[in-house]
Formats: sequence, structure tokens, C-alpha cells
Amino acid sequence: MEHGGDLISYSDFYDGELIDFSSNINPLGPPGGLYEILSNSLHTLTRYPDIKYRHLKKCIADYLKCRVGNVVVGNGAVEIIDNFIQLFNRVVVFVPSFIEYEKRGKIHGKEVLRLNYTEDFKIDLNILEINIKHGDLLILGNPNNPTGLRIEREILSSIYKIVKKKDGFLLLDEAFYEFCPEDYDSIDIFKDYDFENVGIIRAATKFFALPGIRLGYGCTSIDLKKTYDAMELPWSINSLAEIAGNYIFSCKDYIEKSKLYMGNERKFIFEELSKINGLKPHSTDTNYMLIKLLKWNEEYVFNYFLKEGMVIRKCSGFQGLDTSYIRIAIKRREDNLKLIETFKNLERI
Amino acid sequence: MEHGGDLISYSDFYDGELIDFSSNINPLGPPGGLYEILSNSLHTLTRYPDIKYRHLKKCIADYLKCRVGNVVVGNGAVEIIDNFIQLFNRVVVFVPSFIEYEKRGKIHGKEVLRLNYTEDFKIDLNILEINIKHGDLLILGNPNNPTGLRIEREILSSIYKIVKKKDGFLLLDEAFYEFCPEDYDSIDIFKDYDFENVGIIRAATKFFALPGIRLGYGCTSIDLKKTYDAMELPWSINSLAEIAGNYIFSCKDYIEKSKLYMGNERKFIFEELSKINGLKPHSTDTNYMLIKLLKWNEEYVFNYFLKEGMVIRKCSGFQGLDTSYIRIAIKRREDNLKLIETFKNLERI
Repeated sequence: MEHGGDLISYSDFYDGELIDFSSNINPLGPPGGLYEILSNSLHTLTRYPDIKYRHLKKCIADYLKCRVGNVVVGNGAVEIIDNFIQLFNRVVVFVPSFIEYEKRGKIHGKEVLRLNYTEDFKIDLNILEINIKHGDLLILGNPNNPTGLRIEREILSSIYKIVKKKDGFLLLDEAFYEFCPEDYDSIDIFKDYDFENVGIIRAATKFFALPGIRLGYGCTSIDLKKTYDAMELPWSINSLAEIAGNYIFSCKDYIEKSKLYMGNERKFIFEELSKINGLKPHSTDTNYMLIKLLKWNEEYVFNYFLKEGMVIRKCSGFQGLDTSYIRIAIKRREDNLKLIETFKNLERI
Repeated sequence: MEHGGDLISYSDFYDGELIDFSSNINPLGPPGGLYEILSNSLHTLTRYPDIKYRHLKKCIADYLKCRVGNVVVGNGAVEIIDNFIQLFNRVVVFVPSFIEYEKRGKIHGKEVLRLNYTEDFKIDLNILEINIKHGDLLILGNPNNPTGLRIEREILSSIYKIVKKKDGFLLLDEAFYEFCPEDYDSIDIFKDYDFENVGIIRAATKFFALPGIRLGYGCTSIDLKKTYDAMELPWSINSLAEIAGNYIFSCKDYIEKSKLYMGNERKFIFEELSKINGLKPHSTDTNYMLIKLLKWNEEYVFNYFLKEGMVIRKCSGFQGLDTSYIRIAIKRREDNLKLIETFKNLERI
């Protein structure tokens, strides 16, 4: 299993609807009012989307508080990551992280350097400094997937300095940004540097609960954007994604409510799972949690949960993790209670 | 102007809704019933599309009468073209043709060999045979854009033999296939060869009038598909495109009606435009027409039509054409009459 969310592959193993703890989507669903807007906009499918996505980029710039000239958009965050990768000679990743960083690098024939996070999934700045070379593309999840950890503000500044000194490029994959505590906004930080040697990617996929709509976006320097724009596929974003983008970023109440919900719920789940023998939940800044299994392996736990109608994420597919790790999404309270209950039953076996 | 359909760039020059003769979309609109299905499926946006697009590929295989194992899908035909290009060392194109063939080749750092169609926009087999080298990717529009001409069946066989002898690969871009006379079906022909060294691309964009939905598809050999699948971006097709694909290919009446309409209408337009002094309309097999301007240049005619609320396609952006060519889409009768009338007024100046 390379990715979460592939319920179809498991639907034969359970009678009833599976609860998906394997993909990390906002459990509150998309902003209210969106379906009505999309229903009324279906006729836009008969026209090409704006090849320059002018209005969409304006909405994104307003939301991100950056200039329109800094905004890039793509068919999900993964297309933007893929486009950036094509612009550099070598890709540097820390593992465990989203497997597409490394995979897309290899597909494009790039050299990929894989470095390890420390044991508590932090970045060792010495290791970075020793290994990074002139012109490298460093891709970091912030927060990182599957570890759930956000880079501390001071560490981020140090990373940037190291990368910039080598005229490298720092690509932050912030697909889960809005779920995190509001300690800092990397766009706000790097705006002051005109995004020089930096790209920051976000997406409608996770926080706005729209994985099916395929809308990634981000910002980078005006200079890099010129190169980026020249190599983009035309019309990469569906008309309805364009329309959704024009709406969702203005839903301030929804955004607040989602942040608040997730902050409380991850505290609750962490506390509950910490009480269970045989589990070591890792502290998380976002809407999913990496769990170290102390008694079982991922396969056993996966099958145990599948039998109960839940799909969790096995983690041995992530470089740097073995079969003793799983990842779970933080979902609605009723689903989370079912998850906790099932872990308790597992504990009793 | 690299592509048609970019009405936003011209909306300030006309008070009222522009009629778009620059993008070649089925004027009958999408199949009836589609909007209702999509309206009822908006909740699918909150789930990832099937990463393997199993059901969608089954529907496409049924429609194309090929095996599921041969089917590829993409974010519009252009993404599939782009993926194929990445698998080869050199791209061979005939011009004039869809500019993305050459552009995407260059973006991926491929050598691009540009050959010329004959004066009547046919392929000279000798020129092909002399120039094609071992392992080349030959991309041909069938019908070709902007010329509107389909490759004759015997010529297609000869092209295939030439390409195969050099172990090259023939990629047919058949985005406008269903509009054409039913003289042959290349999928039916190449099925007998298990699509060896062949890829055929089609799309929902033009015939099903859904440029905003971004759904391209096609078929190739099981062997090549393995390589292709391994380099695809995940979730490249939006959930609603997936659902539309599950419906539109079964709309037999719509398909028949659209074919019949277009057959009659292109005959009508060709005859009417042939009567106008200063125009040489080219015979076409599909839903658009290349027109040679004998008295004016593209810019003059473009502005004349824009003043009347119509956007046509200037063609000097196509390699091999100069400023004396324009392309028009064949639209609804009332729109076509307005186009013809405007040409008549232009003639009188």
C-alpha cells in the first residue's frame, strides 16, 4: 500500500461501510454552501478553465496574504511537487516522509539523497549541512507525513540559511498547514525574503476535505515562478476545482471551527491512546498520528481493525519505518471513540 | 495566443457574451442527464478518487472495445501525451499540428524533429522513412489540428510499418475522433497487433463537450502500459470526472445525434464559406475548419470578428502556417449563420 485512502482494495473484506483512518481528511467535511455553488456551476464544465487561472490565483493570494505573482496552482499538491522536482538536479529528502518526494525524483531521473530524521523525528542540522550540495532541492513536510511534526521556527530559519548558502532550494510541503497550532506562518516569514530559494505548497485536499477535487497551490519567488509557469501542463485544474477555490478560502468560520476541533481532538486521542498498553502514540501537530506498536506488527493490527470495519495506515512502506508503526487519522468523535475502543479490545487479547 | 478558448483575455473588447469559435467543442453540449448525476455525486469530492481508476477504466474499455489492461487515463489528453513523451528519447512531429507535442518534448529536454506536411497537409511517406530513427516517438493528430484531416487508412498502415521497422512508437492523438466519418477505427485496427508500438489517445474534452472536466483516455500495449503506469502522477483525475466517465460513454443516442449533426453542419459551412470571395476553406473531417485568407491577415479578421462578438483562432502560432490562416469551430446553426454573415460583410468591405 503506497498511499492511504484506497478503500476499494479492502471493500471485499468487510460487509458495510469502512471507516477510513488511512487518509487524513478534515472530518468536518468541506465548507457549508460549497455543494450548492458547485451544483449551480456545472455548466462551466463545457468551457475550458482559464488557462492562466487569474481569478483563482487572486483568491489564493488573498488567503495566503502574498502577491498574485507568487502563486502557483496544480492538480493537487503532488503535481506541484512534481513540477518543482523537474527544475532541479538533485533531490534531498529526510525519511520517513511522503513517498512521492523520492518516487517522483527517481521517475524524472534525478539523483535522490535520502537522509534520516533523528530518533524523535527531528532534523539534525549538522547532517543537513554536511550533505547538502550546491543547487540541491530539499523537500520537507511541514508538518511531516507520517510523523505529524512541524519544524520549529528557529530550526526552519537555520535550515533556510544552510540551503541558501549553497544556493539550494527549500520546498516546504505544507499540505496539512491549517490543522497545526498557529505558532508561525512560513509564508509570512518567507514573504520578507521575496520567497528567494523557497517554495511553499498547500492544498484544498486535507483541510478543506476535498481530496477528490485535486486543488493544490503554493507560492514561490517571482523569478522561479517564471521558469515554473513555462513548464506547467495547460488546464491542469478542473473547472469545478477552480470554482471551489474561489469560495472555500473565504469561509472564515469554517476554518476557525476546523482548527479548534482538531486542536481539542488530537489532545483527546493522544491522552486516550497513551493509556493503552502496547501502544506508543507520537505527539503530533496535525490531524494524524504516528503510533509505535510495542506488541504487534502492522499487519496484525491492520487486519484486526479491518475486521471491525476500519482501515488504518500501515507504515513500513515509508523509508525509515519498520512493521511496528501505523498511522491513524483523527476523525469525528464517534469514529475516534470506536478506534480507541478497538485498541482497548486489542489490548485485552 | 497559444491555445483557443481563452475568452477572458478578450472579454474587455466586447460588451456582451462572446461566441467562441476558437475552441472546438461539441455545440450540442454534454450528454443529457450528466448534470443531475454530478449534482448527486458532489459528496465524492470528500474521498480520494480510486487511485487505480478501476471502474472508470472498465467503462472506457467497454466503450473503446479493448481490454481494461490496455487503458490509460489522464488529466486531459495533454497529460497523457506528456507522459508518453517522457518515455522516449526523440519526438518527431509533422507541422502544423497541436503545439503541445513539440512544447512538451522541449520541456522534457527531448530532441524534437519537426517535419512538414505536404502542401495539402498530407504525410509524405518518403520524408517519414528517411527521417525516422530507431526508438523515435512519432506523434500525429488524427484528425490533425488545425488542419482537420484524418490519416487515410492505407497511409496509416504504411506509417505504422515504417515506425515499427525502426522499433519506434506511433502515438495517435485522436481527441476529435468521434466527430469524423466512420471510415475506420484505429483502435479496432491496432487491437489486432495488441497495440504493439502504438498508443491512441482520445478525450471527453471535445466530443462530450467537457473541456472543464479534464478527462483524457487511451489505449496502448500491456507492455508499454506497465512503464506508463509506473510514472503516472497519483489521483490525476478529479472524482467528478471519474463519475462523468462512468456515464457519458454509455449515451449512445447522444453520440449518434452528435455525429450526424456534425456531418451535416460541416458540409453546410464548407459550401457556404466556399462561396465567399477572399476565403479558401479547407475540407475537414471533423468539427473545425482551417481557412486560408486570400485578402486579409489573421489579425485584421480576428479584430473584425471580435468587434462583432466572436472569437476565432489565429493560426500563425502553429509552426508551418503564416498570418494568412485562421481556424473556426463548427458550432450551432444560429452561431454558424452569424459567422457566415460576418464573413459576407467582410467580403463587401
